[in-house]
Amino acid sequence: MDSYWTFLSTRRVYENRIMKVREDAYRFSRGNVVHDYTVLEFPDWVNIIPVTPEGNVVMIRQFRHGVERSTLEIPGGLISGSDLDPREGAIREMEEETGYAGAEVIHIGTVEPNPAIQNNRCHSFLALDARPGRGQNLDPTEAINVELVKKADVYRMIREGGITHGLVVAAFAFLMLHEMG
Amino acid sequence: MDSYWTFLSTRRVYENRIMKVREDAYRFSRGNVVHDYTVLEFPDWVNIIPVTPEGNVVMIRQFRHGVERSTLEIPGGLISGSDLDPREGAIREMEEETGYAGAEVIHIGTVEPNPAIQNNRCHSFLALDARPGRGQNLDPTEAINVELVKKADVYRMIREGGITHGLVVAAFAFLMLHEMG
Repeated sequence: MDSYWTFLSTRRVYENRIMKVREDAYRFSRGNVVHDYTVLEFPDWVNIIPVTPEGNVVMIRQFRHGVERSTLEIPGGLISGSDLDPREGAIREMEEETGYAGAEVIHIGTVEPNPAIQNNRCHSFLALDARPGRGQNLDPTEAINVELVKKADVYRMIREGGITHGLVVAAFAFLMLHEMG
Repeated sequence: MDSYWTFLSTRRVYENRIMKVREDAYRFSRGNVVHDYTVLEFPDWVNIIPVTPEGNVVMIRQFRHGVERSTLEIPGGLISGSDLDPREGAIREMEEETGYAGAEVIHIGTVEPNPAIQNNRCHSFLALDARPGRGQNLDPTEAINVELVKKADVYRMIREGGITHGLVVAAFAFLMLHEMG
């Protein structure tokens, strides 16, 4: 399919602290049409499912400004320049946002959040034997509640709409497939 | 958690054919900090898993300009103003992109693609008994290959990185949970 498209030019149209927006012009060989495509440039993201020895998932609840309410999620964030390894980034997010540390951290899958309009990936990890560690270490504009949720309840909440974050649902797809072996 | 945040003001900073970008200023009561949050405004999205009587998933392969290569996905798209019902939108995307029609279409779940920075939802559907219908009906800048993939192979490809679209992986999380009953 790639051969239908010829890249022509790009221009930056917007940029702020968290992302850049560019417009890429392509020629489409069927009909010789030239068309602009919006691409949102983000750093890669990570998220992590910490599971305690009792089988609870360590989840976080925080206000999310995109949907203007609190949501129940797993720890996660972006991989900034100084911490390029996804595993290390995921471990750091877990420890800072929940105060828990895991004994073993396994990569369970990677998605592209939106291949049509974004250039980045989101790497999902599983932290086994997660236990309370040194406590939360939050940014000055973060307020995060930690909630322990039984794994069966997580799946029920995904089905019933109590857990809605697309990248969190994708992480639990990887967990289900991981546990099927 | 919501009570920590007081909305102050908003301003549109960018807008194009597919999205709007605004910056919302909030006061955070801990420390009385004022902070801007980027919100990407999109219409709601839909996707749909068409399954044939033989148990194959009707998938599509197309060039995606965000990641600059072809990806294997399920049919989907945005709900535009004229077609506000998610189920109707999903059925239309399936029929236009694959040429298949389903006998029964079931809502299996809804995600928020990124609650932190987006305001929209993506509704996932399952189309049972999908069979070839009137053929593809593509836009002038679309080139889409239809591929039938066994459901077990879909799950294997999600695990192995052959299917990477985050919203597609989320849709299959809903399918797994739906099939667990």
